[in-house]
Amino acid sequence: MFKGALPGFRDFYPQELAERAFIMDAWRDVARRYAFQEYDGPPLEPLDLYTKKSGDEIVGQLYNFIDKGGREVALRPEMTPTVARMVAARANALRKPVRWFSMPQLFRYERQQKGRLREHYQLNVDIFGSADIAADAELVACAIDMMRAFGLTSSDVVARVSDRRILRAFLESLGVPAQSIVGVYGVIDKIDRTPRELSAEKLAALDVPAEAIERIVTIATVQLSEVLARLASMPALVHAEEFGRFMRYTAALLGGDASWLRLDLSIVRGLAYYTGVVFELFDTSGEFRAICGGGRYDNLLESLGGADMPAIGFGMGDVVLGELLRAKGLMKPESTAADVWVAADEHTPLESVMQEAARRRASGQSVEYSLRPQTMSKQKKAAQASGAKAFVSLPNDNASHG
Amino acid sequence: MFKGALPGFRDFYPQELAERAFIMDAWRDVARRYAFQEYDGPPLEPLDLYTKKSGDEIVGQLYNFIDKGGREVALRPEMTPTVARMVAARANALRKPVRWFSMPQLFRYERQQKGRLREHYQLNVDIFGSADIAADAELVACAIDMMRAFGLTSSDVVARVSDRRILRAFLESLGVPAQSIVGVYGVIDKIDRTPRELSAEKLAALDVPAEAIERIVTIATVQLSEVLARLASMPALVHAEEFGRFMRYTAALLGGDASWLRLDLSIVRGLAYYTGVVFELFDTSGEFRAICGGGRYDNLLESLGGADMPAIGFGMGDVVLGELLRAKGLMKPESTAADVWVAADEHTPLESVMQEAARRRASGQSVEYSLRPQTMSKQKKAAQASGAKAFVSLPNDNASHG
Repeated sequence: MFKGALPGFRDFYPQELAERAFIMDAWRDVARRYAFQEYDGPPLEPLDLYTKKSGDEIVGQLYNFIDKGGREVALRPEMTPTVARMVAARANALRKPVRWFSMPQLFRYERQQKGRLREHYQLNVDIFGSADIAADAELVACAIDMMRAFGLTSSDVVARVSDRRILRAFLESLGVPAQSIVGVYGVIDKIDRTPRELSAEKLAALDVPAEAIERIVTIATVQLSEVLARLASMPALVHAEEFGRFMRYTAALLGGDASWLRLDLSIVRGLAYYTGVVFELFDTSGEFRAICGGGRYDNLLESLGGADMPAIGFGMGDVVLGELLRAKGLMKPESTAADVWVAADEHTPLESVMQEAARRRASGQSVEYSLRPQTMSKQKKAAQASGAKAFVSLPNDNASHG
Repeated sequence: MFKGALPGFRDFYPQELAERAFIMDAWRDVARRYAFQEYDGPPLEPLDLYTKKSGDEIVGQLYNFIDKGGREVALRPEMTPTVARMVAARANALRKPVRWFSMPQLFRYERQQKGRLREHYQLNVDIFGSADIAADAELVACAIDMMRAFGLTSSDVVARVSDRRILRAFLESLGVPAQSIVGVYGVIDKIDRTPRELSAEKLAALDVPAEAIERIVTIATVQLSEVLARLASMPALVHAEEFGRFMRYTAALLGGDASWLRLDLSIVRGLAYYTGVVFELFDTSGEFRAICGGGRYDNLLESLGGADMPAIGFGMGDVVLGELLRAKGLMKPESTAADVWVAADEHTPLESVMQEAARRRASGQSVEYSLRPQTMSKQKKAAQASGAKAFVSLPNDNASHG
């Protein structure tokens, strides 16, 4: 007897496939309206594409093996190395800025936990080759417009946005020693899941002055006006001013609606590779993990040995988003049932039914019918069970009608 | 510096992705009109799912490995074992007949040859749970309607159809010894790529009578009338009569157009698992490999330890089809360029451009614009390079128009 799928892998029966398609179609439609072009790469890549970016530690989480040609390979755990490789290969030929998106299935060998998946689909949207803050606004607005496309509002979802350069300057202005900055990032990254006292202890251990500790443990409440005031005499003021522009631009791209956006300096997004704006989308109830995360990573492509190109992007998975849509009653996949069931009495040749089906299919309708002559009541039952939206029966003079 | 993709794997830059989407969208549209429902399974499956069907020999062609949980796994080389597993798991709950399609990426470690791929996308369309010949007609008509959806005609493509049961009876009627039938299938399977003398020699070695050899080496020319005459007094006559119905049904489903169909008893499709109708689609020029192949496999699901359910299906890959469409000038992917480029003179605030972009995007247009203020001539050049279908510039009174 068959066993099921591997642990952590999903079978997509028609209902689940329709839900996956509902999400992907909306992603694709919004990405297209923002003039992003779809691309894809191989699900299997050379292993060193990933170790080069993330170090050898990542191998423990990969589906990696040696192929029959002796190559070390891995199922892709993320899309960035692939897209960096593809952009680097045509760096000169590609029109800049490169506006690309993709919806790859990604794979990680996670420790087995209830409901923990080892694959998911992740929308990746990136702009390569523009250092302009308008590119950052385009990305954040695009992510938010996807929420709107699903029927979510700013009461459901908030975009928490920050900027690495502002956070650094803000911490410096508070008197955090330069050698402690990276350590403090680590504390801030976990600050909303850590008891306040514990965060304070950790900050003290990093030689953060007491007054600064008080401000850092509630750093999520810092407003842009406070940032501007604190950085007034620092060179980083330009970044804070640029961030203000970024917020106005994003609102403009949302048709003037700034209600989705919240400055939140506690958004760090890990320790590595982000160089400017960073952002995450969360449900306002705080019930789910992040829906989406991204930011500017101007040095990554070059550090991977690729093109020296500024870049900003985000990823959005299908799993958390799907959970949120279901919780809000907004998961509305298209029906997979036929438009029409064509029937005829059992003495009518099947060919007449088929000709009618052919005519309707040619005009774009989806049509099902009984694959053998049956009584009308059996056909009605079958049609009902199928969920077909309409039931059409041919006249019983053995002729078909149009 | 980056190396490229693994040998035999494709990168899909936007142009190639658009061609892939052109093929897949047409597949999906026709499958939907025929009331097939889309499903998908994991690209990684337990290795024994494949060895159970194809024996241990297949392992040499697989991307197989041991995962971090000690499981023997493989990237899927075909979809049938996955769909058999999925149908078996819900055999009782699923409405019959099950009409499903899928478009999985499949993987095989082929010996490296110029242009030989190690992955491709393959449309799989199947009906499970119907032994009716109308199901066979639905499948063949669906495959042919896909050709029509691409703009191909019966001058470009022919469906060569046969039936295993008829072939067997026909060979028996010619006096082929029962113990030679399977060997003769093997000769017939290669008959159109083998010199006639060599085929004749092989048949003689299988104790096929001289007169029968003469008919078998030109078996592709056998007409249904000849089959009916030869099988007149045999029990297999019912299969020949049913095959006649199958041909009429398929034509009815094509709106009365039988020109796509040709009985061709030389279509064997390997030696294993097909039990009735078998078919392949070929370009009439004979330039390309088969576009599509399939048939009835009523015993496979049960033999794999799954549900005892009749089944018929076909597979159609993206590679040969893509080559054919390109050769015929019928590869017509949608443009990936934006609908509109919005511009404004360099003194207009970028926010005005963004508001205009937002308005147009909200109405469904895809919109691009320069991410920094630029001279009008620079913006025109950028728009032109992007291929945008229209160029709209805001009036230079700093107001945006609708």
